[in-house]
Amino acid sequence: AMDGAPPPTSPSGLSAYVAVSQLLGLTLLATTGAWLGRYRGGVAWHSPLQFNAHPLCMVLGMVFLQGDALLVYRVFRHEAKRSTKVLHALLHGLALVIALVGIIAVFESHRTKGIPDMYSLHSWCGMAAFVLYLLQWLLGCGFFLFPGASFSLRGRYKPQHIFFGIALFILSITSCLLGITEMLLFKISDSYSHFVPEGILANTLGVLLVAFGLVVGYVLTREEWKRPPLAEEMALSMDFKTLTEGESPGG
Amino acid sequence: AMDGAPPPTSPSGLSAYVAVSQLLGLTLLATTGAWLGRYRGGVAWHSPLQFNAHPLCMVLGMVFLQGDALLVYRVFRHEAKRSTKVLHALLHGLALVIALVGIIAVFESHRTKGIPDMYSLHSWCGMAAFVLYLLQWLLGCGFFLFPGASFSLRGRYKPQHIFFGIALFILSITSCLLGITEMLLFKISDSYSHFVPEGILANTLGVLLVAFGLVVGYVLTREEWKRPPLAEEMALSMDFKTLTEGESPGG
Repeated sequence: AMDGAPPPTSPSGLSAYVAVSQLLGLTLLATTGAWLGRYRGGVAWHSPLQFNAHPLCMVLGMVFLQGDALLVYRVFRHEAKRSTKVLHALLHGLALVIALVGIIAVFESHRTKGIPDMYSLHSWCGMAAFVLYLLQWLLGCGFFLFPGASFSLRGRYKPQHIFFGIALFILSITSCLLGITEMLLFKISDSYSHFVPEGILANTLGVLLVAFGLVVGYVLTREEWKRPPLAEEMALSMDFKTLTEGESPGG
Repeated sequence: AMDGAPPPTSPSGLSAYVAVSQLLGLTLLATTGAWLGRYRGGVAWHSPLQFNAHPLCMVLGMVFLQGDALLVYRVFRHEAKRSTKVLHALLHGLALVIALVGIIAVFESHRTKGIPDMYSLHSWCGMAAFVLYLLQWLLGCGFFLFPGASFSLRGRYKPQHIFFGIALFILSITSCLLGITEMLLFKISDSYSHFVPEGILANTLGVLLVAFGLVVGYVLTREEWKRPPLAEEMALSMDFKTLTEGESPGG
């Protein structure tokens, strides 16, 4: 804005909640790393430790980066919508690539060890989350990033995109908790019930995952914190609506 | 309404989604019953089968009844608000009682068998869900059902009540999925990876729980389906706001 108005500020509270979400996100990664490093021998590709790349990639991609991608419209609330959209798509794209690496890790590890794939509830929920997340990303790019979809079509799809985006984020976190439970019962089934440190640490990782989801979900759903349209967006949108109702804004 | 207007109708689509949610809810109960009855020897109190009361009570109380309690403002959208509130509180209260029976079942069963309590991620998430659900119910009764809280206080608490209500519903479903995974790895760890029917059935129960959560969540968050205030509520609320701003509507 060049009209000499004071720089736009964020609603009070929002910055604090976003800061807490990022602290939680980094704590998630550190806790996952501590679990794998301290108790599971660390992470390496093409080795018996290849499996350990799976939890690390899924927490980083399907939780931390997916969550941050959802937050960009709240954090960059005064930037141009187009730039924010591109950042939203890029972060989700990066999350998808990292999640794919994590999925390859578990399938290769299973093949090496002769363990069957896709029999557990964790694998069903996790694979559903990944495939639907990829589909949601493709639909999002098609509707909102590339020209072609009309304003009215975008307006009708947007609430569905938001609902399923949050639902997939929750399903991703749920899949992580299922994976933690599976891994503990495979690796320390005899000592888990004696409150050994590894069990407490991994349970704490589960609680942190829930906390991250709660804080991100709170920021996303709080009405006063939604991104307000910029003045020029409203004018532009009204012009387009008047001139080209039902036609593509981009073509 | 006695003004001869046509009877109020529900938005198109809402009834269909509610019907699907109820079909899913009944299917949940049938699937849980089938799992416990067909593969786990059935359900009985004060017997080695006492544990099996736990999953049945939790699916019935913390999922089906909790979910239906959340839906009452959408389903009974043209009833007096006071009656709908009472029904909302009663359904949650019934859910809490049934969940308490389910929790007693697992603690007594553990004591009989000498199994430690509260060591697993499932127990941490499930107990957090139950305790916070009880707290949320007490706060809800205190703020909205009994006189005493001012309109402005109610207005400020309401968005928190809704957010945490949905969050606790999701955490309850997540806890059920963790419980299913634990139970399968305790009971059929050797055959689970060979796609035995019990594993497939229990996984399917998990998928049905997610589907129930999705449909209920969709009905709750769809903007056009929110309960509109009745004409007399708006007039009453405005009178009260003008006359007693900041004072109790009940006292």
